[in-house]
Amino acid sequence: MGLLLRALRDGGPRSRGRLAEETGLTRTVAAGLVDELAELGLVSCEDADRRGAGRPGVKVRLVGRSVCGIGAEINVDHLAVVALDLAGSVIAEFRLGIDGRRLSPEGVLAELAGLVTDALAEARTAGATVAGITVGVAGLVDTATQRVTLAPNLGWREIDVAEDVRGRLAAMATTAEPLPPVQVANEATLAATAELDPTDADRADMVVLYGEVGLGGAIVSGGRVAPGRHGWAGEIGHLPVDPRGRLCGCGRTGCWETVVGLRALLEAATDPDDPIRDPALNLEERLATLVERARLADGRTLAALGEIGTWLGTGAAVLVNTLNPGTVVLSGYFAALGEWLRPAVEARLAADVLAPRAGGTRVAISAFGPTAAVRGGALVSLEPVLSDPTALADLPELHGGSR
Amino acid sequence: MGLLLRALRDGGPRSRGRLAEETGLTRTVAAGLVDELAELGLVSCEDADRRGAGRPGVKVRLVGRSVCGIGAEINVDHLAVVALDLAGSVIAEFRLGIDGRRLSPEGVLAELAGLVTDALAEARTAGATVAGITVGVAGLVDTATQRVTLAPNLGWREIDVAEDVRGRLAAMATTAEPLPPVQVANEATLAATAELDPTDADRADMVVLYGEVGLGGAIVSGGRVAPGRHGWAGEIGHLPVDPRGRLCGCGRTGCWETVVGLRALLEAATDPDDPIRDPALNLEERLATLVERARLADGRTLAALGEIGTWLGTGAAVLVNTLNPGTVVLSGYFAALGEWLRPAVEARLAADVLAPRAGGTRVAISAFGPTAAVRGGALVSLEPVLSDPTALADLPELHGGSR
Repeated sequence: MGLLLRALRDGGPRSRGRLAEETGLTRTVAAGLVDELAELGLVSCEDADRRGAGRPGVKVRLVGRSVCGIGAEINVDHLAVVALDLAGSVIAEFRLGIDGRRLSPEGVLAELAGLVTDALAEARTAGATVAGITVGVAGLVDTATQRVTLAPNLGWREIDVAEDVRGRLAAMATTAEPLPPVQVANEATLAATAELDPTDADRADMVVLYGEVGLGGAIVSGGRVAPGRHGWAGEIGHLPVDPRGRLCGCGRTGCWETVVGLRALLEAATDPDDPIRDPALNLEERLATLVERARLADGRTLAALGEIGTWLGTGAAVLVNTLNPGTVVLSGYFAALGEWLRPAVEARLAADVLAPRAGGTRVAISAFGPTAAVRGGALVSLEPVLSDPTALADLPELHGGSR
Repeated sequence: MGLLLRALRDGGPRSRGRLAEETGLTRTVAAGLVDELAELGLVSCEDADRRGAGRPGVKVRLVGRSVCGIGAEINVDHLAVVALDLAGSVIAEFRLGIDGRRLSPEGVLAELAGLVTDALAEARTAGATVAGITVGVAGLVDTATQRVTLAPNLGWREIDVAEDVRGRLAAMATTAEPLPPVQVANEATLAATAELDPTDADRADMVVLYGEVGLGGAIVSGGRVAPGRHGWAGEIGHLPVDPRGRLCGCGRTGCWETVVGLRALLEAATDPDDPIRDPALNLEERLATLVERARLADGRTLAALGEIGTWLGTGAAVLVNTLNPGTVVLSGYFAALGEWLRPAVEARLAADVLAPRAGGTRVAISAFGPTAAVRGGALVSLEPVLSDPTALADLPELHGGSR
């Protein structure tokens, strides 16, 4: 059933016959599974091809709204939460600027739990069962213990984010209904999940560069986000690129993120008293201001973007030489400024990649930008339903209605 | 059938019943396939469990000798060829020291074709059908066109190795029999194939460092050697690690291979007039001398190995942070000196990898060392037979006998 559900999500509505053909199932088996999915309220069937001369086909359509996944993100300067339904449409979305280095972990998590509670309420109003909550953190996440081991830019060590959020959500709950499962993951890993596209061969092997205050990364290999042996893959922010460079949050010198993170861009593009540096500003406002200055061809802004783009390409070349990805995706804050960053990235790749024509790797700008991680979190939360739609029956029904 | 053949190769002889169980086939299907394999001469069946009280099981055993694959390697200071049978046993093996930078590509390829012709003759004598010939080159190989695009340490550009070797083998052939297929690949990619072990979870995600005059590399992800989008993955030798370092064969400065390649070790460990630098010496002799000096605790040798090991760890940490492999394998020349290199590599990983305990990545010493690439080439040559044993019928029968 999961196979059919994924096919409908990724390819849109189509006839039972075509679904069977594309998934390699017999027509009888496919029809039976479609009936089961319809009973679960996940698909609807309608007579298509009524005007045709042949026998009418039944067109199957995903009913996205009945289930949703929640993605949340803890970053140094902002929190974000999104609820996506099964079809990928937004049910609820919240963002909040914070100063993560001044707030305690408890303070940050309390704010986050508030946003998630709001999203749960909106899902309930929309009549959607929440399949799960996935929290992305800009740091090392121990996937086995579900703890945040180290988040250098937040100054966090060994924080049990999932357990903490669970407790806060339970305390804030206004009903006695059980909570959906809560898990924690690295935010760039989640961002990469949002960038996956099974229809694009250039994205089956992919490097996702997720720009925030620091730099997150994820490696996609053979169409899946590669976790590595113990789930620690993607720590590219601390690639040494500038031995004579600045001190990094990790304690070392000249890490890649010190020269491409948002902090580096703001320092290169603005003076200390520039209003853009006001910690009360949220990421969107900052990026909008930078985009405006770049459009007006402000010399300092363009020079700073050229410099960041060159450093971005210098590090990306290491990954392209190692992995020969089909695509390097500029995600996170890089996406908003991608138009000005990409030429410098491409120039560095052309110069530093040994294979001809930069190994055929193309540089793409994320369509999601800073929302990629929360979108990915929501998609990961929906995974259990896509893998086994019958699991829905075991989920707490937040809306109390029938499916 | 390929499934059964692989199971027999990787797990040794066993009863038809156990084979069926382990491969998930029904007993009837498995028995039928075993009969077909026996007809092809690839397995033998014998009554096992004769002394048991129950009905006798039939024990199935791989008959390795009837088929072999040939692997060849073109490196800067040596050529090598090996013929392995289906069970992985050596049928023939040749090595030849060369000065690849003085010889023309034609001169090198003529020597190589000579060695391959000798291996073909030995396979014929052994009564084995040669499934294919795979030539590994220390350089960038365009897998689509099967040309060597760039081999910086050999000084080669755009050489059609497969076509050239095919022509030379045909010219040297003493019989009118058709030649087995010839293909070309990157040597470190082949070395990684030899290091694969489906029974070891720590090798499903793996980084193979193949030390030669330069440094080759390959990334294993999800149990397979990851080629990247266009087959250029694994070019780790040109990772920039030492901006104030020495000029590399690729034209840039401070590439990883300039500080860890065999050339760097020889320069650090020996004086220019040291007999070990004699170009007439082959790799084994050089390594044997270095091992002897290290065993005798020669100060200069140990200091050089410590320095190389530290640089090896510095670059490896970048890959471990990015990929979190279960294993980093020291292969090629590193394997012979692994005992002295590994402690420094592990120390750098512990210091430079962000995840706790170096992300759980272990450092392993290859059991094959400098023969990993030719072994991998032979295994790759055997792949078509393992994927579809009936393909054997289409292969030229070099030995002219019956199978």
